Amino acid sequence: MTPVITLLTDYGLEDGYVAACHGVIAGIAPEARVIDVCHVIPAGDVRRGAAILAQTIPYLPEGVHIGAVDPGVGGARRAVAVEAGGRVFIGPDNGLLSWAVHASGGARAAYEISDADHFLHPVSPTFHGRDVFAPVAGRLCGGLRPADLGPEVPPARLVTLPEPTSLLREGSVEGEVVSVDRNGNTQLSIAAGDLHALGVRVGDTLGVRLGRRQFALPYRETYAAVPPGELVAFADSAGLVAIAVNFGDAAQRLGLPPGAHVRLSPSP
Amino acid sequence: MTPVITLLTDYGLEDGYVAACHGVIAGIAPEARVIDVCHVIPAGDVRRGAAILAQTIPYLPEGVHIGAVDPGVGGARRAVAVEAGGRVFIGPDNGLLSWAVHASGGARAAYEISDADHFLHPVSPTFHGRDVFAPVAGRLCGGLRPADLGPEVPPARLVTLPEPTSLLREGSVEGEVVSVDRNGNTQLSIAAGDLHALGVRVGDTLGVRLGRRQFALPYRETYAAVPPGELVAFADSAGLVAIAVNFGDAAQRLGLPPGAHVRLSPSP
Amino acid sequence: MTPVITLLTDYGLEDGYVAACHGVIAGIAPEARVIDVCHVIPAGDVRRGAAILAQTIPYLPEGVHIGAVDPGVGGARRAVAVEAGGRVFIGPDNGLLSWAVHASGGARAAYEISDADHFLHPVSPTFHGRDVFAPVAGRLCGGLRPADLGPEVPPARLVTLPEPTSLLREGSVEGEVVSVDRNGNTQLSIAAGDLHALGVRVGDTLGVRLGRRQFALPYRETYAAVPPGELVAFADSAGLVAIAVNFGDAAQRLGLPPGAHVRLSPSP
Repeated sequence: MTPVITLLTDYGLEDGYVAACHGVIAGIAPEARVIDVCHVIPAGDVRRGAAILAQTIPYLPEGVHIGAVDPGVGGARRAVAVEAGGRVFIGPDNGLLSWAVHASGGARAAYEISDADHFLHPVSPTFHGRDVFAPVAGRLCGGLRPADLGPEVPPARLVTLPEPTSLLREGSVEGEVVSVDRNGNTQLSIAAGDLHALGVRVGDTLGVRLGRRQFALPYRETYAAVPPGELVAFADSAGLVAIAVNFGDAAQRLGLPPGAHVRLSPSP
Repeated sequence: MTPVITLLTDYGLEDGYVAACHGVIAGIAPEARVIDVCHVIPAGDVRRGAAILAQTIPYLPEGVHIGAVDPGVGGARRAVAVEAGGRVFIGPDNGLLSWAVHASGGARAAYEISDADHFLHPVSPTFHGRDVFAPVAGRLCGGLRPADLGPEVPPARLVTLPEPTSLLREGSVEGEVVSVDRNGNTQLSIAAGDLHALGVRVGDTLGVRLGRRQFALPYRETYAAVPPGELVAFADSAGLVAIAVNFGDAAQRLGLPPGAHVRLSPSP
Repeated sequence: MTPVITLLTDYGLEDGYVAACHGVIAGIAPEARVIDVCHVIPAGDVRRGAAILAQTIPYLPEGVHIGAVDPGVGGARRAVAVEAGGRVFIGPDNGLLSWAVHASGGARAAYEISDADHFLHPVSPTFHGRDVFAPVAGRLCGGLRPADLGPEVPPARLVTLPEPTSLLREGSVEGEVVSVDRNGNTQLSIAAGDLHALGVRVGDTLGVRLGRRQFALPYRETYAAVPPGELVAFADSAGLVAIAVNFGDAAQRLGLPPGAHVRLSPSP
């Protein structure tokens, strides 16, 4: 079976950084298929990187999954390889991998990436994606085992990001903005299923509360169900409630940054 | 022969959406080579997607070609597989595929994509690229035939975009702006051959009429033939007349949106 | 061994231009692995293209390396194939390839790309990436030799960009800004080793002189070693000194365009 390596970074596309990672992998594991998950995570935005990796991972073949959103690179943070399901996640131990590990069934075992024999030398203090993660991923495709990378780390000691919370109350559900995509579509931590449990059906109207603001919003199957320029809520492709403006930018319109608190209820 | 799948979407690069499509394809058709045509079509701009797909298709190997610029996703529009030449086009029946189908010799047969056995489940109402088009494309590489996807659609009933028009008159040729690239180079619907038929040769001066404005423009082999900052017309890589500013933005300078009407004539 | 073709262009991602190159290569050399180095070089910025290609090339497998930042395309500039180390570089003879050729051991032989039998026809005067470089690269993977492309060009007659200079004096080292990445990190032509020769160690303070401005800067292992918003100098992943703002934009803060002159010294 073709081994698969996936790459998520905040390196951007303006430089040759992503290509250097591809090149290192191609040199060590020419048979591997490399899939770019995303390279324009806002610089250092570990939470956004974690959200995108976790939401994409169910659709990626099992393989070695590199995450490199690493504002502490070269500092004290450790690098880890985490086994979860049939996957191996590689990256900094800063929480970036935690939601994807959770989505893959939880960490079965984890190892510090510390045996420099597997690295590219000299190791740049600021570019572990190229000099540590890429060569290690390539070697894992060639038969190296995660346990060969360094000492075991108890999974409970891995850094994890707090999962975005949601709270189902009587008559309402509370959550927060998980992330915002380039079109300004705003993904909430509220599962569409929770709305359903409250009796909300597609076609109904939702009551929305943002801080001290309150308003009503149509709940539809898709953003295309409302006229251009209008606000709408719908279940997005991850099964979460999203707020969008058809042909517009909901995050900007409503002033909704990641982490903002939102309460939804069936409209009276 | 290595099967080829190509992808054109308006999903952008800021999320994992494109990667999810790659992942689904890699899981179903690991032997396929996937070529990204473009993923930053302006959201919902079917016309721009159609233009880019049609202009790129002659340079892509025959294969399965996914188009997902789909402002009506989840609504009433149907999804289709269209056979044209040795290619199969897959996407919404909203005109997006029509120019590329035409450029590939016209639709030989078309089928509604309706047999949900071939989809990824649950099917997100807003993400058919991942849940419908990608798995169907992968399975077509593995031997499934377009006719297996659903009922036949008479090619004449496929939605088509009006082809950008051009009209060769005595002494002038009229057309419109087809699309504008990121550098502001403005591609017209006027074939370079039509200018030639009017007696225009490289090195000549063109008369240009835009609404009530009229001006002269050098017609050269390439934009590099004029000094930086100057306007120029030339035959672009698709054989169409383009208006550019060397190291500048012609669309902005001239106020030329897609669809704007332009008349060219040999300068008196 | 899988042949490798790499692509660096200023075509941008908004069009199908890069895909057309991939498609042409896939048609001629379906077995080749294609690695995208960068496609968002600012239009016509030969110097930035040269810097990125040269800094990435050590991490790419040996192969055929296309560079297409080509403001003179269709004009008098010639196209060349340059052999250096085990690599073949293909592109315009405008200096774009020169730093990467140098980084690969220097030109062993060079040939004008003039035999149109190997091109795609008709050759667009503005799109040699697709019609000249891509098919030639594909054919080189299939056994064609660079010497088959056209007459030999003495390596000494190839156009070369002036290497960014740096001058180690007694007590200071002078250099210039080589390039600026999307985060505003500013890469200097000053080798970290030269600072070391002046006695500067990680943890020290640097004296910086920019024109008539003078200030002190912490020299650290990585930009993460200073608080967010603070300036820092460090050795970047290419072994050169870089000036950055942790979570900020150093080029903008300091007004440092490529080519700007910088002098560094140990702080007294």
